[in-house]
Amino acid sequence: MKCAITRLDRRFQDQIQTIIDHKTKPQGALGRLESCALQLALIQNQGNTCFNQTVHISAPTMLVFAGDHGIVEHDISIAPSAVTRQMVLNFISGGAAINCFCRTNGINLKVIDAGIIEPITDNQAGEAIFISQRLGASTKDFSKQAAMTEMQVEEGLLLGKQVVEQTIKQGCNLLLLGEMGIGNTSSASAILAALTGHSVSHCVGLGTGIDALQLTKKQQLIEQALARQFVNAPMTVMAEVGGFEIVQMVGAILAAAEVGIAILIDGFIVTSAALLACRMYPQTRDYLVFAHQSNEQAHLLMLAELEAKPLLDLGLRLGEGTGAALALPLLQASVDFYNDMASFNDAGVAL
Amino acid sequence: MKCAITRLDRRFQDQIQTIIDHKTKPQGALGRLESCALQLALIQNQGNTCFNQTVHISAPTMLVFAGDHGIVEHDISIAPSAVTRQMVLNFISGGAAINCFCRTNGINLKVIDAGIIEPITDNQAGEAIFISQRLGASTKDFSKQAAMTEMQVEEGLLLGKQVVEQTIKQGCNLLLLGEMGIGNTSSASAILAALTGHSVSHCVGLGTGIDALQLTKKQQLIEQALARQFVNAPMTVMAEVGGFEIVQMVGAILAAAEVGIAILIDGFIVTSAALLACRMYPQTRDYLVFAHQSNEQAHLLMLAELEAKPLLDLGLRLGEGTGAALALPLLQASVDFYNDMASFNDAGVAL
Repeated sequence: MKCAITRLDRRFQDQIQTIIDHKTKPQGALGRLESCALQLALIQNQGNTCFNQTVHISAPTMLVFAGDHGIVEHDISIAPSAVTRQMVLNFISGGAAINCFCRTNGINLKVIDAGIIEPITDNQAGEAIFISQRLGASTKDFSKQAAMTEMQVEEGLLLGKQVVEQTIKQGCNLLLLGEMGIGNTSSASAILAALTGHSVSHCVGLGTGIDALQLTKKQQLIEQALARQFVNAPMTVMAEVGGFEIVQMVGAILAAAEVGIAILIDGFIVTSAALLACRMYPQTRDYLVFAHQSNEQAHLLMLAELEAKPLLDLGLRLGEGTGAALALPLLQASVDFYNDMASFNDAGVAL
Repeated sequence: MKCAITRLDRRFQDQIQTIIDHKTKPQGALGRLESCALQLALIQNQGNTCFNQTVHISAPTMLVFAGDHGIVEHDISIAPSAVTRQMVLNFISGGAAINCFCRTNGINLKVIDAGIIEPITDNQAGEAIFISQRLGASTKDFSKQAAMTEMQVEEGLLLGKQVVEQTIKQGCNLLLLGEMGIGNTSSASAILAALTGHSVSHCVGLGTGIDALQLTKKQQLIEQALARQFVNAPMTVMAEVGGFEIVQMVGAILAAAEVGIAILIDGFIVTSAALLACRMYPQTRDYLVFAHQSNEQAHLLMLAELEAKPLLDLGLRLGEGTGAALALPLLQASVDFYNDMASFNDAGVAL
């Protein structure tokens, strides 16, 4: 998939920084919120000939991509693949954590079947919008063979792109990403190892809670995959060890960056998609905001590759986009102080 | 001030934990949000004969206490005392960071003059409710003499209590605390040193941004105060090195704990009030939630004394209650998952 993603144009950076610095507070006293405000203002001024002094968040939308993983047959997850589908049904009917947090924070929710084993055929009337754009019925077991073909990767990128384009047409200017897929920490770990050369033992963790034997097995399977010695080009890595939901998220990230909207990245799995997207088009990084530090330790390695420090660290290890949904109010607060807080002049404060 | 604060009754703890553990997620996967939900459910079931299965947050209210400090005459702050009053006017008219964040997150705001130098006499029509309950026109310079009398401390505790009682009558069941007072990091540092015996150099930091010379001076002044060798009883410590806003916050915290509602504690200064309250009545600790890790390094020492780990770490160093206001959505999310998330049974998920 060819993308025309531009580096953030910093023409208005000084003007934005001046607005932030003239607010009634010591310079820098709002910490991370100040860098969020700067980044959002830069993003929203892309291509403007005149400087727009306000920033806004409109129809923030969470896309949760779901897929199943052939690797799961080795019993390296806390749950069987059937749980992926059960949780997708839970998302549709509104009962999962991500539903709660989207309601709490005013986020639209779309659930995408990118390739779970058994499709959802009956038209579920539910809370979340459900989209079926399947690349297959689970990936292949990547310890033995490529998880998918490069053609499936291409198709997945396009499908991810399409859902974002449609979402943006509906008024969304801030994308949040989440995922569901039993076994997908194995994919994310393998992607990290393949792209960076970090040792597999550093890239693999306990997922949502496997035991020591499962952990060893998980490492062995990933080693086995890497022994195929494929090149570390993102397209190849996705085909060899990726997941259908991960590939579609890469497409979604690239599409959002191409249009020029901010993307709030969730935990370990979504970050693996972000890393792939940034390896394909490094300028994508400018549009990413990192929501939370996952409990999965290898997430730190991934974040270091992306020079990213997440906003939250709450010990979450659930996925679904929960960390991103929880971080949205911090972005809203950044926007609100940037737009609405008085300047020293306005308020007659002589700091 | 005598208080009847009870330790959290843990009769329903197993039932609450069962609700949390049966939600459609691996046990513990919502990290800190799970402990918040547990704490709020325990607090809201105090004194119940039957177990109430839901939790709610009602009319969350931020009280920002303001006061001036005699110690400021030594030029150890980034701003003169006049800025305290200017910022109080900014709060009343709705232009400060805390106004923005209270609006963002649906928090009521009351601003209390606990003793700034020049009172606000004209009835300011504004966004925030303004309450004048002054203990004086600034504390005395605590490097030379006690900041206030023990009678002022007693009065301040009662005034803090009154405003909380009134706020609870208005339907509030979650209190948030913030403060404004040029020079009040000096008080908070001195309180920490006096209560804990930590060396002054470890208790003092850069506040909102003083230079190295000011830092040395600030340390010397606090050393000078401690050389009076007063006892480390909370009432004495407040009188010797406290601030009017700090004393009223201690009264507010004790009153809220007495009624049995949760209190969301902001950064360095509010935590010094929490530490004082917990030294007076250790059972107060059960009702406290810590919002954010301040950029002031000595905050870590204070938090360690209280065995507290804040929810957020965003590099804030502003005060006003901004950290507490920003943390509220995380408490709301805790409540929402606890009340609304499907159980494994509800959703037919076989994790």
